[in-house]
Amino acid sequence: MRLVEVEHVVALVAERGLEAVLAELVDHIEADFRRWDEFDKSPRFASHSPSGVIELMPTADSRAFGFKYVNGHPSNQAAGLQTVTGFGVLADVATGYPYLIAEMTLTTALRTAAMSVLAARHLARPDARSMALIGLGAQSEFQAFAFSKLLGIRELTVYDVDPAASDKFRRNMDAQSIAVRVAASAPEATEGADIITTATADKQHAHVVSANMVGAGIHLNAIGGDCPGKTELQPAILNRASVFVEYLPQTRIEGEIQQMPADFPATELWRVIAGEVPGRQHRDEVTLFDSVGFAIEDFSTLRFLFEATSPSHLHREIDLLAKPTDPRDLFGVLDAQAVVHCG
Amino acid sequence: MRLVEVEHVVALVAERGLEAVLAELVDHIEADFRRWDEFDKSPRFASHSPSGVIELMPTADSRAFGFKYVNGHPSNQAAGLQTVTGFGVLADVATGYPYLIAEMTLTTALRTAAMSVLAARHLARPDARSMALIGLGAQSEFQAFAFSKLLGIRELTVYDVDPAASDKFRRNMDAQSIAVRVAASAPEATEGADIITTATADKQHAHVVSANMVGAGIHLNAIGGDCPGKTELQPAILNRASVFVEYLPQTRIEGEIQQMPADFPATELWRVIAGEVPGRQHRDEVTLFDSVGFAIEDFSTLRFLFEATSPSHLHREIDLLAKPTDPRDLFGVLDAQAVVHCG
Repeated sequence: MRLVEVEHVVALVAERGLEAVLAELVDHIEADFRRWDEFDKSPRFASHSPSGVIELMPTADSRAFGFKYVNGHPSNQAAGLQTVTGFGVLADVATGYPYLIAEMTLTTALRTAAMSVLAARHLARPDARSMALIGLGAQSEFQAFAFSKLLGIRELTVYDVDPAASDKFRRNMDAQSIAVRVAASAPEATEGADIITTATADKQHAHVVSANMVGAGIHLNAIGGDCPGKTELQPAILNRASVFVEYLPQTRIEGEIQQMPADFPATELWRVIAGEVPGRQHRDEVTLFDSVGFAIEDFSTLRFLFEATSPSHLHREIDLLAKPTDPRDLFGVLDAQAVVHCG
Repeated sequence: MRLVEVEHVVALVAERGLEAVLAELVDHIEADFRRWDEFDKSPRFASHSPSGVIELMPTADSRAFGFKYVNGHPSNQAAGLQTVTGFGVLADVATGYPYLIAEMTLTTALRTAAMSVLAARHLARPDARSMALIGLGAQSEFQAFAFSKLLGIRELTVYDVDPAASDKFRRNMDAQSIAVRVAASAPEATEGADIITTATADKQHAHVVSANMVGAGIHLNAIGGDCPGKTELQPAILNRASVFVEYLPQTRIEGEIQQMPADFPATELWRVIAGEVPGRQHRDEVTLFDSVGFAIEDFSTLRFLFEATSPSHLHREIDLLAKPTDPRDLFGVLDAQAVVHCG
């Protein structure tokens, strides 16, 4: 069974290039969203505590079962720890044997950016060239890089309440030769933007973007509001926007639309990608991708990782399965090493 | 973060002895069952397919979150594969950081045997000395060893439909100097037994034990019926027995009592262990431990594994978490390796 650690993902990105890896992720997610009905789906399992949430996100098609472990702990940052870490697993449905464990701390950031680009391709105006980015945490550079390289964003204006976050962001974008304007406030950042991406991490109902900041034709990419009690947008924005989600039963609990009545209209994005329903229908429409992250995106990502990490320098072999010669002789796994006689 | 592979568990058992490891597991499970109310509990997540089931079994107390991945695929054996494999994870509730991934293919067999012994201590007659064991698959030697060493079983009579399984079992018990009588049928095996353990693996409603095989005062340890559609006992036995379970909401779906009405009386074993209610009340009582395996047992087991595998030769260090100097600078984990410039 294969273990893919952080160093292996770093090496993979070094070999293929970040842009190519993100493009592959977009393709893999898109392919799986097109065959949405082939997946077993359920809202994720969430274990909440005062400091954050730990989640298990399972899904399966007829061949593979996949799940991701992921946490969200906004207070970690003050202790020098990351808000989000995770890992994912793929297993063979026919035998139940797991065959991949992969880091998804770095990879979740990659797939979230890929998912945002995929949604924006269908929901933003095709000529969108400017983006405002509010919240410059761990996810921010991945969003900025992905939208610049894969969606043609040329003007990037950003804002964070913490100037140190802006400095970190600018330094990383400078290294990529991506031009950045740092705004003095969220309203200033969103002025004239074709796309507004919100990626803040507070576990509370915040109004990072208010209705008067959202002009006609804007696409909102809201990725920070992703658990119960955590939202970023004023309800008035939701009432003005065409809202698209990943998986409705989960987003009604975790997304921006948790603020709205249970019958608030929203469209599952896979229907747009599969050509069943239109995405953006006119230039002045306000579209919102109310993103919380769904298990199928991780499944697609793990599929890609498994395909891409076959070379021996891109993984480690580990044994969590034992390999008794006779499958009924698990006890012999101990005995073969003369173990039970030593007790 | 720590990875404990099969070889590490084998080495741990070699160092401490199988009996001592099982005794530690009994103690850890007992300690956690005594503080049952401190745990978040939920029925496991199960993904069923024509060939078997894949399950995620989560639980948490205020300090640690744990879960196990486990499969059950009866048809695997014909392909030379194990019916059950698995691994488990512990994470820090305060930060959400996972800190242990451990094999639970071998360890699940150990903990299942430990759980059976713990239940029998409270439910079998104190002077029980003979056990019938029906079903000689991967779990059987662990049961036989645990009951012999930790519960004082002196007479062991066994039966399996497959003579090859009996040969394998006898060979393993010979190596442990545990005397075995192989019976020609299940009824013959159960004659005069104080305890009957059933550990068959077919995914169907079987009647491995029928009512006329169950005499007064017997304790039944039923570990094979553990998923919907899979039972081992005639309903008539359930009507005669005092039934004890791990966690009622799960056992009503998966255990022997799935055959019975939804209000069929059964007692959660933790109440007995905590001294809230009696276990066996008289010599002639028929007791049944309707075991399906519950997340807290795995949690206890992972706790023990984490305590026991600190020495460097009993684990591997792996990185699924990345370690950005600034926790918001996850992008820098790529950049530090000059990665994104190579794309």
